[in-house]
Formats: sequence, C-alpha cells, structure tokens
Amino acid sequence: MIQPQVTPQLLDEYCDRFRNWGKWGPDDEIGTLNYITPAKVIDAARLVRQGKVVSLALPFDTKGPQTGRFGRVNPIHQMVATGTDHVAGNQRVLSFETGPYGFGYADDMITMYLQTGTQWDGLSHIFRDGKMWNGQEARLVTSAGAARNGIEKMKDKVVTRGVLLDIPRLKGLDYLEVGQAIYAEDLDAAADQARVAIGEGDIVLIRTGEMGRRLRERDWGPYPAGDAPGISFTTAPWIAERRIAGIAADTWGIEVRPNELPNAFQPLHLVIVVNMGLLVGEIFYLEELADDCARDGVYEFMFVAPPLPITGAVGSPINPLAIK
Amino acid sequence: MIQPQVTPQLLDEYCDRFRNWGKWGPDDEIGTLNYITPAKVIDAARLVRQGKVVSLALPFDTKGPQTGRFGRVNPIHQMVATGTDHVAGNQRVLSFETGPYGFGYADDMITMYLQTGTQWDGLSHIFRDGKMWNGQEARLVTSAGAARNGIEKMKDKVVTRGVLLDIPRLKGLDYLEVGQAIYAEDLDAAADQARVAIGEGDIVLIRTGEMGRRLRERDWGPYPAGDAPGISFTTAPWIAERRIAGIAADTWGIEVRPNELPNAFQPLHLVIVVNMGLLVGEIFYLEELADDCARDGVYEFMFVAPPLPITGAVGSPINPLAIK
Amino acid sequence: MIQPQVTPQLLDEYCDRFRNWGKWGPDDEIGTLNYITPAKVIDAARLVRQGKVVSLALPFDTKGPQTGRFGRVNPIHQMVATGTDHVAGNQRVLSFETGPYGFGYADDMITMYLQTGTQWDGLSHIFRDGKMWNGQEARLVTSAGAARNGIEKMKDKVVTRGVLLDIPRLKGLDYLEVGQAIYAEDLDAAADQARVAIGEGDIVLIRTGEMGRRLRERDWGPYPAGDAPGISFTTAPWIAERRIAGIAADTWGIEVRPNELPNAFQPLHLVIVVNMGLLVGEIFYLEELADDCARDGVYEFMFVAPPLPITGAVGSPINPLAIK
Amino acid sequence: MIQPQVTPQLLDEYCDRFRNWGKWGPDDEIGTLNYITPAKVIDAARLVRQGKVVSLALPFDTKGPQTGRFGRVNPIHQMVATGTDHVAGNQRVLSFETGPYGFGYADDMITMYLQTGTQWDGLSHIFRDGKMWNGQEARLVTSAGAARNGIEKMKDKVVTRGVLLDIPRLKGLDYLEVGQAIYAEDLDAAADQARVAIGEGDIVLIRTGEMGRRLRERDWGPYPAGDAPGISFTTAPWIAERRIAGIAADTWGIEVRPNELPNAFQPLHLVIVVNMGLLVGEIFYLEELADDCARDGVYEFMFVAPPLPITGAVGSPINPLAIK
Repeated sequence: MIQPQVTPQLLDEYCDRFRNWGKWGPDDEIGTLNYITPAKVIDAARLVRQGKVVSLALPFDTKGPQTGRFGRVNPIHQMVATGTDHVAGNQRVLSFETGPYGFGYADDMITMYLQTGTQWDGLSHIFRDGKMWNGQEARLVTSAGAARNGIEKMKDKVVTRGVLLDIPRLKGLDYLEVGQAIYAEDLDAAADQARVAIGEGDIVLIRTGEMGRRLRERDWGPYPAGDAPGISFTTAPWIAERRIAGIAADTWGIEVRPNELPNAFQPLHLVIVVNMGLLVGEIFYLEELADDCARDGVYEFMFVAPPLPITGAVGSPINPLAIK
Repeated sequence: MIQPQVTPQLLDEYCDRFRNWGKWGPDDEIGTLNYITPAKVIDAARLVRQGKVVSLALPFDTKGPQTGRFGRVNPIHQMVATGTDHVAGNQRVLSFETGPYGFGYADDMITMYLQTGTQWDGLSHIFRDGKMWNGQEARLVTSAGAARNGIEKMKDKVVTRGVLLDIPRLKGLDYLEVGQAIYAEDLDAAADQARVAIGEGDIVLIRTGEMGRRLRERDWGPYPAGDAPGISFTTAPWIAERRIAGIAADTWGIEVRPNELPNAFQPLHLVIVVNMGLLVGEIFYLEELADDCARDGVYEFMFVAPPLPITGAVGSPINPLAIK
Repeated sequence: MIQPQVTPQLLDEYCDRFRNWGKWGPDDEIGTLNYITPAKVIDAARLVRQGKVVSLALPFDTKGPQTGRFGRVNPIHQMVATGTDHVAGNQRVLSFETGPYGFGYADDMITMYLQTGTQWDGLSHIFRDGKMWNGQEARLVTSAGAARNGIEKMKDKVVTRGVLLDIPRLKGLDYLEVGQAIYAEDLDAAADQARVAIGEGDIVLIRTGEMGRRLRERDWGPYPAGDAPGISFTTAPWIAERRIAGIAADTWGIEVRPNELPNAFQPLHLVIVVNMGLLVGEIFYLEELADDCARDGVYEFMFVAPPLPITGAVGSPINPLAIK
Repeated sequence: MIQPQVTPQLLDEYCDRFRNWGKWGPDDEIGTLNYITPAKVIDAARLVRQGKVVSLALPFDTKGPQTGRFGRVNPIHQMVATGTDHVAGNQRVLSFETGPYGFGYADDMITMYLQTGTQWDGLSHIFRDGKMWNGQEARLVTSAGAARNGIEKMKDKVVTRGVLLDIPRLKGLDYLEVGQAIYAEDLDAAADQARVAIGEGDIVLIRTGEMGRRLRERDWGPYPAGDAPGISFTTAPWIAERRIAGIAADTWGIEVRPNELPNAFQPLHLVIVVNMGLLVGEIFYLEELADDCARDGVYEFMFVAPPLPITGAVGSPINPLAIK
C-alpha cells in the first residue's frame, strides 16, 4: 500500500485533525485516558483467566539503555545503610549506637532521570509552539515542575485492556531493522493474526524486537535517541480512529528513526501527545510477554501500569504489568 | 483480652516459631509472596465489579512526611528541560539549536530515598544478628546493593486480593492516638465488621488514621520514625496463621511506637521480615479508600502494587492500586 | 547619622548609578573581580607573615543551615563503597572479585544545592527585569545552565587581600540581633578599629555573629531565607566607591532582613550583583577567624577562595581560606 | 638504570618501610600534611612574584573523563530555578508570586561522585587488609561516612609550595604513552631541568601529558581506570625520602597502568596512602600551568588547594590554584 508522503503540511494537518483540546473540558489533564471507563476496567479484569503476571519493565540499573545521549544517564542507586555496616557492628539506629536485639537494616536512594527506563511520557513532556496538551501554555512547565498536565494526574487512570502487537513475529523476523517503519497495515495485520480487535480505551503495546536485539547483543548501540524501528508518522489516523487510551513500544521513542519528516525530531509526538493527548510509553520490555503470547495465543490482557504520583513530573518510571 | 507481655524471650520465641526459612527452597527471595498462586490472582481479578480504581500513594514531593529523621528527606524533583526554556526560544534538542517544527520538551529527574514515601520494604531491608530473609547473610547487602533478596525479585509478584481493615472507623474514632496498639482482636473485629475473611495470599491494609490526621493538621509531627499508633508485636501469630502475603499501613513503620519491647527498635520487623519473609508496606495513603469502603461496604478488592525493579534495591516507592 | 529612606526610587537610582555594564567590555563575565590585578595578588601574598591558615567554610553535612525554605536542603553525602564492605570480604574492584593484595577502598557521592552552605553567588544567580550582569539576557540561563556569567569564569580570579569587619565585636556584642542593619558608618568604624583601610580589589568579610549564635544555640531558627542581621541597602555607595572585588558575610543572604524596602526581596542584590557585578559570598564561617583576628590584632590577610569550575553553574560551594 | 622488580615481597617491604603510623600521634588524621609548617606556608607565599593565578581544575561537567568505569559518572548539574522561568513571568520567590521589583534568580544543584574530576583522595579512601591510615580500622568507614580520616580534617592544611615536574617536556614528547612508567630518575631529572629542589612539605605535581592528549583527541579512551602512563611503584622511596606533603598527576590514578605488580590494582596506593599517609591528587589539569612554566622558566609556586569540608567524605572535588 502506498503511504502518504510525510511533509510539513501533513504534520500541520494531523495536528489540526486529531486535536482533542477541549473534548473533555478545558481543565482536562489526562487526555485519552478518559476513554477508560469503569466498564472498561471491569472488562479488562475479566481477561484474567490464567493467573499469570508478566512485568514489562526493564531493570532499573546501570546496565540500562542510556549512554548520555539526550543528556540522560542510567539510574544511580546509592546505599545509605548496608548489611556490611551491620555485620561490622558499626551501624547506628536513631539513638541506638548499634541496633538493639540484633537489629540491623539497609536503606537506599536513587538518582534517576524519570525517563531513563521503562516509562510514561506525561502530557507535559512535549510542546509545540508554546502549547501542550489541551492548549495549556508551555510556560506553565518551569523549574518548579509542571503546574498543569503533571504525571500525578494519572495516578489512578492506567488500568485497562492491553493488547500486544508483535510486529517482527508477524513478519517472521527476530527484530525489525533500524529505520524500518511500522504502518497501519502492519498494526492491523498483527491484530488479525493475534485475533484481537483494538477497541476504545485499549493500550496498545507494539513490539519491534529492538530491545531484545540490543539485550542479546549486549550493546545498546543507537538505542537511546538514535535510529530505531518504530511506528510511522502515518499511523496517526489509525491511532485516532481506534480511540485507544495509550500506546507503548520497546524502543526509546516509539517513532521510526530517522524520522520520516526531514529535519524533524519526533514529529508524531507533536500530533499524539500535544494534540491528541495520548499516553505514550517507551522502553517497555516486551520479550517475555511476546514469548508468552506466542505460546498461549492470547494477545490481550489486563494491563495495570500506574505512574508514581511525583507532583509536577513530566514522566514517570513504571513497572507495567500484563495480567492474564 | 489479656495480651502477652512483650519480652526479649517472646521476641526470640516468635523469631523461632514463625521462621519460614527454607519453606520455599534455599534460594527463595520472595517469602510470603509465594502464597499468591495463579488461582489467587484470578480470584482477585473477580473482585473487580464496579470499575473503580483507587491510588494508595501519597504524592511524592517536598510536602511528604520526611523531616530528616532516620536520615531521610523528601524527594527532590529536578527539571532538566522546561517549557519556559522552550518559550524563551532557548532549548537545544540533540543537534538542533531549537526544536524543529515548533518542537519543545520538558524532562526531569528525581533524587529520592526509596523509602521516603509510599513503599515496600524489601526482604533485604532488615537483618537480625547478621542474617536476613531465608537465612541469607547480611553481608551480601553492600554499597553495591543487595546481592540477594533485592526488591526486583518481586517485580511480577504483587497482584492479589487486598483487604482493608479500618481500625479507627471500627472504634468510632477519626484516628488512633500515638502509642495506641492494634491487637489481633482488633484485626478480627474489623474483618468481621467489614464482612471479609482474611485468606491465604491476601495483602492486608491496616488503617490507623494517623496519616489522615497529619495531613489535616498540616504538620507531620512525629510521623517519620517517631511515636505512632500501629500493630502490636503480639499480632505476629495472627499474621502467621492466616498465611497472608503482605501487610501495609498508613504509618511510617506499621508497628506501634514506642515499641512494646523496652529499648527495642521495630522488633516485629525482626519477626515478620527477617524470619517470616513477609512483604511490609508503609506510608500508604488509605483515606480515600477507607471513605470509599465505608460508602459501598466493600472492603476487599484486587490489589496491584508492583515495586520498581531497581536492581539490588532494598525497598521501592510504589503507587498501589485498589481496584474494585 | 540619618540614613536615606529606602524607596523604590532609591532602588532604581542605585541600579543606575552603580551599573558597571560595559566597564570591562561587552563580553566581561567576572565583574568587579577585574579590580584584582597581578599587583594586588602579589600584595595579598605579602600579608602571609605567620603561616596561619583559617578555613571559612561551614562543614558540608546534614547539620547545615538549610531547612527546606527557599527549596534548599542540606547536602546528602552518599557512600558508594565502604570499609565495611572491604572488611566483610565483599567488595569487587573492577574485574577482581575482591581487592588483590589486601586492597580495599571507599568512594562517595554528593547531592547538593550549590548554595546550600558556604558559597559564592555567580553573576548569573540574580536577574532584574530580564537582565543579568553586564546587560546579558536572563533567558541565557536555562535548564542547561548559564550560557553566560557562569561561575566557572571565576575559577582563577579569587585570590586577593581579605579584610574582616567584625561588627558585633566593635559594638561589644556577641551577635547582632535579627533585623539589625549594618550601615556604612559601622563598616568604617570597624575598619578603623581594625586599623585597615579598605582598598580596590579587596574582598570584605562582614561578621554579624548570626552564624555563631545559631551554632551555639544548636537551632538554625530563621537562618535560611528568614530574618537576619545584615548590611543595609544604603551601603551600596560605600561598596561602589571602594571598588572592592567582593563581599561576604556569615548570614544566608548578606542583606538585613526584613529587607528595608517594603515588599521587596533582597533588593541590594539587584544593585550589587545584577548592576555592579560584585562577587557575593554567603554562609561564611567567620567565628574562628574573628577570634584569631581579635587575638593578634591583624584583620587583613591573603584570601583564596576559588569556586569549583562547574560549567554553567550559578553558584559554587567553596572552602575559603584566610592566610596570615 | 635498573629498576627493582615489583613483587609481592616488595609491596610488603615498602608498606613496612614507609609506614608512618603513629609518627604524628595515634590520633593523627592528616598524614604527611604535617610536613607543612607555618614557616613553609610563609615560604610558599614568598613565591608569589608575578601575581599570576592558574587553575588546575578540569571543568566539572558532562564532558569530564568518566565513562561509567569504576562505577563513576560525570557530574550532573541540575537547575532548580532559571532565567527562562523569570522571563516567562512564572517564578515564585518565597511568598511572592513573582519576584518583586523585577527580582529574578537562578539556583542549582549538583549530583557528583566526589572523585569524578580534579580531586584529592582522602586518607580514608584506601585500605589494606582492614586498615587505613594511621592503623585505623577500615570498618570505621561505613555508609554513614568516614568516622576517621575524613577529608574535612584537611580543610585548612593544603597551602604550601608546589612544584611542577613536566616529564614529557623533559623528554621532548607531547605526552607519555599508555603504560609508560616514570621512575625516580625521571623525577630527579625533571626537577634538575626545572632548577627546583624538592623539599619537605612540598606538593609535587607530575605531568604525564595524558590529559592534554585525551582533550585534544576529544576521546577519553582508557583514561578512567584503564591503562595510563604514571609513576612507577618504585618511586616510593623517592617520595618517602623527600618528605613531601602530597603528590598529584594529570591521570586518573597517578600510578602507571597496567600496574607493574602482576594481578594487582593500584599497589602504590597501598604504600603511600594507607601506610605513608600521603595526600594524593588526581585528574589535575596541568596543561596551562605547564605552558606557563615553560614560558617563564619558573616551576615552583604557592599552591592552595583546600578540599570542601564534606563531613566524613573520603575524597573531595577541588579547584587547585598555582599562584606565582
């Protein structure tokens, strides 16, 4: 099938056509998560038939995908109390010189970019021409955090049906190549193959195989902010029409890179985050889930992935669960 | 009812009696989460009947409960890219001097104690006499993290039935007073009143009202590491017999403080974390859930609260969800 | 003596009158540090006659002055390798499972506000109406740091003559009261008493006694961002006429607080940092130096206090040395 | 000249022979800095004849030498208030919605490994067989920091005469090759060429050219913790006999690497830090100083390089100054 050419005009057209500003009122801060209704939550829970739980989070540690590109580094985990202090008999506990009755403890901190690993983009993460989701001013996102559209607004919203679209498996590949675009036809074909219909309020997980490849190769290569397989800019209508609540992928930024629009950076984000108000997830670990779905043939599940309610944050690390 | 006197002998007795080391094999690192079976997960999902989702996380921000006691401070949220940079036309994006096609973004970091807010204690968080859960050596928890019993081992384990025991509501109080102990009888009475039976694999959420009180008073007072209402040391048999998977409360440390054993610090942790291998949750925000349960009379729900899989961490911030 | 009334007009007048923009060229980024010439450095070194070195830094630790006001907290020091790990035989060193030939090490990190303790304000720290030192645009200070007037520009500039003006000792007091202003007359009297003449390129250290008081009382009280003794707004002409290179005090913000201009916040900073380009130091520990000067009667010394050259930083922690 | 073979026996011999434990009393925590007397400070100041100040610090930023090896990453500089917030009219200042009278400000934080850049090793940084400097127990260095031999003990001790030994310039090279050892003869030759005699209490700066090379090549290569030129293990007697106060180099770890003792890691540190109590500086930027010394023929100077007094730290970032 012939894809439309990705031009600046198409960017503007999509931004206009798929703009949901005001759809859920002028004060809305959760966008397409509004598609998730109580009935949807109930339906999602009914998908739990085997009692299986699969985590979709990459471990948060120094083996993570960041390399300093885009300014992000991997999480730094810092111990502030240890078992070795305890066994050395040199651990103060409040006013106790050593823990009484044999008491000892460990404690720790983390310093991390909120989007260093498996994460949600908040609706305050992306701007276009000074605006963010629902027409709010970008200037509301200061050094003090996001006064509007902060990730904390979604704290109890991300429980719904999840669907896995495993694109390389559909194509008989281990992984898609860097630069390979996924089109609406690919998404439909994967859904057909998986015998699932994408419905309103779903969160769609798209596997490219890119993360699995990099993990097996033990080298992240261009993974963070570099070239990658991913969804085409032209999937915007597909996303909009299905009224899905969110989309996530096993890549750094869900979009195919190099981006199809010349001299652009993540143009689909301008359409789907800024204008559509879509929840976008990145760096999802989908290898285990994909294997499981291939085994049991079930590509739909209850999907629970709440962000940490960090006040004013523009993203959040998450541990998304697929529950079957 | 007369409670047993809490003595050093009772501490030793409980440690011995409720020790589950080896019960799930010598390599087990998740303790009582083993009580959560696939059948339990399915049953938990069947509790979703209204499509309601309630977050049990306190916001992660500088209003949080920490005051520096026990060395912990509130989370520090740091913006590394802002909307104000974007509107000032002064935001570089990779090799672009300014974001192309109107592109702008915000990005952020966090520096936080992993147990600063709503959180799980890992099974590597507490030691006694050089040992932690399953008899592992405390010396395995170094500045490099927990080589055993790290929180990441639980990444796909915390999906089960949750039950709320609202103790002050049972007693017709807004909150329990500091120093007020909750006994096994109180737990049973609250369960009876809520018409729930505590079962194997459940996670029991105990409301003392302490957090609600401090939030209303806009002053955390002794909340972090100070005196508090909480469960009595003597509830250990109750916990063990019911074979619950976890316990959580709306206080800093679940136990009544001052602790009942003189000159001790959190002695019940020595029994339930080190020896029993119980998952313990603290600083849970239970006010909204309690109001909801009071309204609909339903005190059981699907409970999903995965930790972030931070490799080698001894605890994790969480956003626990009660799904009804 | 009668002091002029501090009005909005006086603020504007001083900003105009003492504006040094362009004085050292349009690209200057160090302001009054230009007053420090090679001859001045040589003269400063000649003041070293006893071989005494006094540190003027408050320890950087959790006992520091911050309480969360103004958003700043005390430094968080994190060990990432410890002696206890080493003695537990559980310390990996690169590819060595344990340090060879008995080798062990400790390593550490810090997370700190750059102005949490003894520090220099950079010339990019304060703005007025969108401008900073030398007329540079405030918009050049983004989340990516200060593109102009960063603290790193001063890395080899802060070696000069220092002079201590011990105001409470002059007045026979232990410390000045909160809200007590220091006027030009007080500075002159202190200099006279100390038998020092303030000269071009000097850095003037002003002791109010406030820090010593708080340390003795073991309670920082209003120290961070609250009320304090300090120099009057009306000292601006005194500072300008003497062509000093910098000024520092033992308080949080050098100015008397409540500020003399109603409904203002640190108005003198607008004059001396933004317009004059003066180096301002805060939270200096002057107790030991003051005692030493009182003992030997010598109130002038070589003063060496380089900032850490943190690229784009708007301030820096320092360990200033007075060398006699 | 024939160099002794570096064997485990030589390591033990040097550790014994050059052990200064107890030399300055059982409670000493500053080691060879005791060689710096008041007379030495006065003499050092007399070296200031031209009024030149040269900073020996590499900028602290993300271009720094760390690559994640040895677990260290480059400093992370985080803005917590910006000029762009100010110009966007969206900056709260304490209780003011926007800064009054045009007031605006920027503020920032840093998260850094204390030994990420130009730095001093504290005497609590290295252990051998459970001991550190002055025979103190390594177990005193816990997650809570160094209870003995912390870097803060040196806060007013590092003012002395500095001498630059420019080894590649002596040999007519731009830089020494990786793996090239510097012997006592090289040090003597460089001192002769520079017409300086190394004296008691001096701090000796050794240039290998390695940092300049990596900066010019814009690739740090093996710089952090990898192979490097550096001083031979066999320089220990040279160091001990001269009774110098400290030594520093423009490499990651001063010692030649691969280390001469097979299967060892930084064995000279075991001799000079643990046993001798020598101050060791690393990642010094010596290019500008070396050029200056070559120009004016003066290789001695006043050297001022106080650590930040971070309580219990085992190292400190510094901005060392050579003042001529």
